[in-house]
Amino acid sequence: MSKIKITEVALRDGSHAMSHQYTVEQVKTITKALNDASVPYIEVSHGDGLGGSSIQYGLSGTDELKLIEAAVEAADFSKIAVLLIPGIGTIEDLKNAHRIGADMVRVATHVTEADVSKQHLETAKELGMETVGFLMMSHMAPVDKLIEQAKLMESYGADTVYVVDSAGALLPDQVAERIKALRQALTVDIGFHAHNNLSLAMGNTLAAIKQGATRIDGSVRCLGAGAGNTQTEVLAAVLEKMGIETGIDFYKMMDIAENIIAPILPGTQEITKDSLTMGYAGVYSSFRLHAERAAKRYNLDSRDILIELGKQKIVGGQEDMIIDVAAELAKKNKITV
Amino acid sequence: MSKIKITEVALRDGSHAMSHQYTVEQVKTITKALNDASVPYIEVSHGDGLGGSSIQYGLSGTDELKLIEAAVEAADFSKIAVLLIPGIGTIEDLKNAHRIGADMVRVATHVTEADVSKQHLETAKELGMETVGFLMMSHMAPVDKLIEQAKLMESYGADTVYVVDSAGALLPDQVAERIKALRQALTVDIGFHAHNNLSLAMGNTLAAIKQGATRIDGSVRCLGAGAGNTQTEVLAAVLEKMGIETGIDFYKMMDIAENIIAPILPGTQEITKDSLTMGYAGVYSSFRLHAERAAKRYNLDSRDILIELGKQKIVGGQEDMIIDVAAELAKKNKITV
Repeated sequence: MSKIKITEVALRDGSHAMSHQYTVEQVKTITKALNDASVPYIEVSHGDGLGGSSIQYGLSGTDELKLIEAAVEAADFSKIAVLLIPGIGTIEDLKNAHRIGADMVRVATHVTEADVSKQHLETAKELGMETVGFLMMSHMAPVDKLIEQAKLMESYGADTVYVVDSAGALLPDQVAERIKALRQALTVDIGFHAHNNLSLAMGNTLAAIKQGATRIDGSVRCLGAGAGNTQTEVLAAVLEKMGIETGIDFYKMMDIAENIIAPILPGTQEITKDSLTMGYAGVYSSFRLHAERAAKRYNLDSRDILIELGKQKIVGGQEDMIIDVAAELAKKNKITV
Repeated sequence: MSKIKITEVALRDGSHAMSHQYTVEQVKTITKALNDASVPYIEVSHGDGLGGSSIQYGLSGTDELKLIEAAVEAADFSKIAVLLIPGIGTIEDLKNAHRIGADMVRVATHVTEADVSKQHLETAKELGMETVGFLMMSHMAPVDKLIEQAKLMESYGADTVYVVDSAGALLPDQVAERIKALRQALTVDIGFHAHNNLSLAMGNTLAAIKQGATRIDGSVRCLGAGAGNTQTEVLAAVLEKMGIETGIDFYKMMDIAENIIAPILPGTQEITKDSLTMGYAGVYSSFRLHAERAAKRYNLDSRDILIELGKQKIVGGQEDMIIDVAAELAKKNKITV
């Protein structure tokens, strides 16, 4: 079997769980340890990517450029990656990250909006960075649409295209179908980024690898948004058990999880009612508070609203639709009663 | 797709995590809530089954017969199951459990020792109970041996035979292979009991269902031994999403997890270094302390000892082998150095 390259996202996706309060000292310690365990890529950014620090997305406790710089200094083996969501981060942010030593950028868009990644992927290529196209909320597009969008990213110069299960909503067969189709349609590497909302991060990851994904994201001790990502130290052990090479020292990864990450975990990484509901409905976690307010107003269960939002494929930016959907549900309930 | 019947094991497998200190009041409350959520089977016993309360396996805070009685009284829909490991529990224990209203017994043996379940399964049948043969540590036997043992249980009158992944050591393809082979070889129902040590409880459970398993164990909020079992409320949601009927009200299951179980959780149900090591090595959790002592004596990493014990397929009762294995490893290390 081919070699799997793992990107550790605890210092980016995990930044959500840490309310974006990582310190330079923490980033140094964690990066140094991950580097010693031979993790090939470590992503460091605000949870919502470069430039994410804001009232809307959460203010960073420390300027992310300082954190990236600390990671670059601490790593002599691992490559440092940054996330960039066009519209949140800018070309300027990308250039700054490159200037201080970031090796790779992952340009992330909604699964149907790959075209907004063109400029950023092309600029990164010109800068000599390794490039990844990151198709978020991949469960929301049918397979043919996903292929079309992935091909766009490939044409812009992405070295890898990722299927990103942002809401942790995909099932193993759905992951397999998507990766298989992309493997046939693209010549670049295929990656997979899971969330554990349905307790399927690992199962989905193995399904992706079976179909030819070679780039996989993990978060040590599940330190990621929602229910966390594929647990890196467990993934390293599982792949070792399967005889699939990752290059990672999984004893060291286990020790990092236990001795460095567990003590700073801000809360439980278990699958709670909220994270399960998000995964089941397949919606953005930012919808939750809106749905709870609307549920109160119309005397509904907020889960019914979230599930309906998922069915109607409401996306970020359409939060004003939530109240309409709730009103509609309340009306339907009355008729049924 | 066929209907899946779920057995909730938080009041039995979860008893390990609760150090066997469940109270009558807790069992009443939890059973009543599970009953209201239409869970078909609820298992109530000491973590090591009927008669498990002992210095060796842990003393129960409350006589398990009192707990079983409380569950029987609290449930008017759910059937109450008990676990019996011959050698720990006796025919007398089985009769007592039946007398106070237990509907089903799961007779559990090591995967290669199904013959010791004969008497208990036959007696249960005579008593008119529903019967399950429970093949523990299923990862330790090759598929043909597993089939042979399952057929024995079928011949003794088991209505269902379970593949039990006691150490959470199986991978999805291994589960699929085993369930498929059993489905072809047996006429009775096939069940699957997962542990989450490798973060694969849900992925493995879906693989089992795909190959024809119709009886599945879950523990609400992962309240089971080690890293817990397949998380019941998540399983109910996932199967609902897949259009596979369980009969369970998954909103109610989510509420039970959040409002009743989470507050009494004694510790984290995350995948820790210990539970991961057990799953990777495929050994009994009772080996851990022995391995740690041997590691100290021979200046080894206890994980190396546990993994070697797994390779040599050492089973419970052979704890005295642990020091020999450690000595052997230490000798080998010296030669290599």
